Amino acid sequence: VTLAAPHAIVVLSGNELLDGRTRDVNGALVSRDLSARGAQVAEVVTVADDPQLLGAALRHALAAAPELLVVGGGLGTTHDDLTARCLADVLGAPLREHPGALAMVREAAARVAQRRHLDADEVFDLARRQALLPSGAEPLAPAGVAPGILVRTGSTRIVALPGVPFEFAAMWDVVAWRLEEEGFFPPVTRRVVRTWGIGEPQVARLIGDLPHDLLELGITVGEGEVTVHLRHRREEDVVAQADAIVEALVESPYVFSRDGRSVDEIVADRLRARGATLAVAESCTGGLVAARLTALPGSSDYFVGGVVSYANQAKIELLDVPPGMLAQYGAVSEPVAAAMAEGVRSSLGADCALAVTGVAGPSGGSADKPVGRVFTACACGDHTEVRAATYPGDRDAVRRAAVTGALHLLREVIAT
Amino acid sequence: VTLAAPHAIVVLSGNELLDGRTRDVNGALVSRDLSARGAQVAEVVTVADDPQLLGAALRHALAAAPELLVVGGGLGTTHDDLTARCLADVLGAPLREHPGALAMVREAAARVAQRRHLDADEVFDLARRQALLPSGAEPLAPAGVAPGILVRTGSTRIVALPGVPFEFAAMWDVVAWRLEEEGFFPPVTRRVVRTWGIGEPQVARLIGDLPHDLLELGITVGEGEVTVHLRHRREEDVVAQADAIVEALVESPYVFSRDGRSVDEIVADRLRARGATLAVAESCTGGLVAARLTALPGSSDYFVGGVVSYANQAKIELLDVPPGMLAQYGAVSEPVAAAMAEGVRSSLGADCALAVTGVAGPSGGSADKPVGRVFTACACGDHTEVRAATYPGDRDAVRRAAVTGALHLLREVIAT
Repeated sequence: VTLAAPHAIVVLSGNELLDGRTRDVNGALVSRDLSARGAQVAEVVTVADDPQLLGAALRHALAAAPELLVVGGGLGTTHDDLTARCLADVLGAPLREHPGALAMVREAAARVAQRRHLDADEVFDLARRQALLPSGAEPLAPAGVAPGILVRTGSTRIVALPGVPFEFAAMWDVVAWRLEEEGFFPPVTRRVVRTWGIGEPQVARLIGDLPHDLLELGITVGEGEVTVHLRHRREEDVVAQADAIVEALVESPYVFSRDGRSVDEIVADRLRARGATLAVAESCTGGLVAARLTALPGSSDYFVGGVVSYANQAKIELLDVPPGMLAQYGAVSEPVAAAMAEGVRSSLGADCALAVTGVAGPSGGSADKPVGRVFTACACGDHTEVRAATYPGDRDAVRRAAVTGALHLLREVIAT
Repeated sequence: VTLAAPHAIVVLSGNELLDGRTRDVNGALVSRDLSARGAQVAEVVTVADDPQLLGAALRHALAAAPELLVVGGGLGTTHDDLTARCLADVLGAPLREHPGALAMVREAAARVAQRRHLDADEVFDLARRQALLPSGAEPLAPAGVAPGILVRTGSTRIVALPGVPFEFAAMWDVVAWRLEEEGFFPPVTRRVVRTWGIGEPQVARLIGDLPHDLLELGITVGEGEVTVHLRHRREEDVVAQADAIVEALVESPYVFSRDGRSVDEIVADRLRARGATLAVAESCTGGLVAARLTALPGSSDYFVGGVVSYANQAKIELLDVPPGMLAQYGAVSEPVAAAMAEGVRSSLGADCALAVTGVAGPSGGSADKPVGRVFTACACGDHTEVRAATYPGDRDAVRRAAVTGALHLLREVIAT
């Protein structure tokens, strides 16, 4: 079912988004945020910095009469007012210098001039064109120098923001808050149920024939996790359908999260609740396990440190892995994974330790230990658990899957 | 200048791309690849799985008469032939079962049935609809089960591929190869000049008034690097313009790469050429320096290992940082950065070592050492160089900028 949610279209302007130089972040941000707030993004159009193409894209978007049209990019000194001119043209609302926008630009120019030790009047002269708005439009306070543009046509609210990601993100926050205040978003609930260790068909089978005609239901797959996303309005019969599906899912032992928390967050919460500390030792993942654990703010509460033991020498020196064990079993082996975990735990005095050793590829594989073969060990209390897996894909995919696998091993060990 | 390159438009269909669940990879792949081959992607339209929206997007795209229209998604069992039906409708070419496509589907169904121990006839019955193509279209051999669609209208070649990323990527390779064979792409050269340590205005000033009307010139900014991208045809007068710009740029001491190599690749090449080994010690970057160094295949040639010394205890135990130094200067300080580099170098017996300590935030900052303050040290030979920087942005941005900063410090130290 497609919910009768406010219908939004996003138009992004920027040559750099179309030739692989830069990956879009603004469109991803606004799609994610609108969707989380219960709006339906029907279309994202990314178009080159060209008045004809941008004009055509705006006309195409407005033809669908969306309730919200978000335009990113094409504002600011380097863009020669592209978006403002195209909007003026498409709306038949000629550009005028807006006094409020002018005041914003003057203030922002003074700020920039001071920071960069430039002449404020010169900066203002260069930036002044950014106060030109289509008549009838309202300026949005800039995060950099260029104000945003808010204008209505028919039942559509148009919001145009500069494309520099930090400006876009800061100004979008203000726009979203205003839309929220105005009651633009419907009351929608979003639920996420995460599984680990089973495939998409088995997850679909858990849902089976349960009715879901009143819900939006999606299944995504990545790095060994299968995730079920539910989005629905808050009416009683709708909530009942969603509840039934969540209940059917959580009967499965493969469900590890029913409140949307990621494995990273679960592991962090459990370590913090136990007052336990964690150390890691990694070989093929080369620091990615530690990097992912420390990506969460406050991770110093439980994360002590780690060792990236890429060379055998590092395994011997820093982790006390016996050289004889390396010679007998090889660096990619169950006993070495266990020794790495126990070694880093003892050298850093941590309560728990996680270790990963494997063949990330593209070279280094053998018949016995092919590319993708990874051993993961978790040492907690007086027990060390070791798991073997073979992950598909290229070097990057193997490394990322190995990190996720390691976090799940830790999650399972500290659950009990 | 916009080169008279073949003009391409990409239309992607998929609800999961519009609500923040999944980040597009197919559009990024095809944009990057087309651009590298000298085609100009003018627009990428991402649209929900809905016949009306997809039909409108296809009509909008065809109205621009592109030489190439790539459609991703909406093919395969779960999509109910969405793309095939929309194409048939837009082109006025009714769906017909194509005998070649039928043979492809039968063969793919047999393969899937065997792998999953299912009945081949049953799988084929379910998949048979995927042999329906708009009349006049040609099937493209499937990587999964669904064939792609190749069809011409006017001067436009339309290519439709299933949206599952591995299927899309494998089938796009074949399509690109065919287009290459048919002489679709113009002879275009791409050059990349990378700078570190100066801002975009200064880079623009280096180019100054040099003529570039025959070139495509772009400047991108990220993590402290400003990169100039040139793309041009191979005619003599065009090449002369490009040469003049590259020459003007490389006079600047801030240019560190004129052959497109990233700082990661340069550092790797230099270490390998010197036969030198490297170790790292990181605090706020939490493993990201090691992860980035080991992202390159073959990094075990020079990368020995690293220590993620998150807690002070780890700095003392594994890196021999004197407890008195930590007490006197604090963990985020110049002497501690130097001691970390020297400590990891000696404990791992490496030739060079890199160390990073800083305040990634969001908490932990002080007036003296605000969030973003980072000290980086590089110990090589008998010299240790330490640098201080304050990076803007959130935790993730500070961490990523600190990693790039560390790689540049290493690059400069091992250049001499």
